[in-house]
Amino acid sequence: MSSSIVPQALGELIEALAQLPGVGTRSAERYAYYLFKSAPHKSLKIENSLKDLHSKVKYCPVSFALISDDQVVSPLYEDPERDKSVVAVVADPFDIMALEATGAYKGTYHSLGGLISPIDNISPEQLHINELIIRIKKDKVKELIFAANTSVESETTLLYIIQALGEHKVQITRLARGLPVGAELEYTDQITLTSALEGRQSV
Amino acid sequence: MSSSIVPQALGELIEALAQLPGVGTRSAERYAYYLFKSAPHKSLKIENSLKDLHSKVKYCPVSFALISDDQVVSPLYEDPERDKSVVAVVADPFDIMALEATGAYKGTYHSLGGLISPIDNISPEQLHINELIIRIKKDKVKELIFAANTSVESETTLLYIIQALGEHKVQITRLARGLPVGAELEYTDQITLTSALEGRQSV
Repeated sequence: MSSSIVPQALGELIEALAQLPGVGTRSAERYAYYLFKSAPHKSLKIENSLKDLHSKVKYCPVSFALISDDQVVSPLYEDPERDKSVVAVVADPFDIMALEATGAYKGTYHSLGGLISPIDNISPEQLHINELIIRIKKDKVKELIFAANTSVESETTLLYIIQALGEHKVQITRLARGLPVGAELEYTDQITLTSALEGRQSV
Repeated sequence: MSSSIVPQALGELIEALAQLPGVGTRSAERYAYYLFKSAPHKSLKIENSLKDLHSKVKYCPVSFALISDDQVVSPLYEDPERDKSVVAVVADPFDIMALEATGAYKGTYHSLGGLISPIDNISPEQLHINELIIRIKKDKVKELIFAANTSVESETTLLYIIQALGEHKVQITRLARGLPVGAELEYTDQITLTSALEGRQSV
């Protein structure tokens, strides 16, 4: 796109939006043009919420969930109704929201801030694994539910956590793998089907 | 997503981003979390460019291309190298950029700001058709290239323009329809193939 035919302010917005994950120049152009055509209050809303993003959102120092600047720790962690002896370990804070949306979980959470990945240069020291080990001992955690997608990175991370726990006794579980509800057997991939077979439950 | 577990500033950003065309809550969450994890200068860049969007970008009063606030008319329209007697009529300003990217066009442009669509409540009066007719007469336009995707809306719009021109003599052409470069004949849809047959050229 020649800069001479795109007004500078628009070109800068397109460039800035194209940095978002999975957004290419075409999508960025579409977003920018949509915002330009829309009433100014729409872009003002994005502008204002961006202004607060880094100043009013922070990590909970215990669970590494995202919390407001006026909170000390995550309200989920503080909630006396939640079982501190059960910790679901997730890769990213938004995985917490996905699990919370089920309404089926009454334990607490711990976000690692990613998974170990030599390829992406993510080492265990960059993740909140140390804090997890400290918390397991301090909160007398009985069960650690490892709630990450199946991948080389998640397996590596789980193994690392098990090693880091050493002699410390904690039951480690992971989310059940099997057929998603509503899935058709004949269209399910072999790895999922194998997991569903291995994890078969008595009726 | 329960509001109690999403910090307000983050929730507002997700809501604001989810208003963009084609962006759902999941994508908005991903963008918001990406910006939160990234250095503040990334969100500041979006913030600043949004600030300038409505104040520093406007429509060219002749061609309705997007121009900077310090420009009077589109530099493409003013350019003495460009042939004012040939006008490519497009639906949206970004179509101009797509055609310019070819480097193959030396005429000028006219953006209609959309296409006639009774379903979407877009009537001819909301589009820059009147300005096009005035311009055709004023600039002694010889050829009008109708450069819009094939759709009911574009056909309706083209018919309306032809009617609005009345007795006024202008050659009206449209972009060639046929096989895209690199397309395989057997995978091409029938309408495209029919157009390619009808528009066959001697070698």
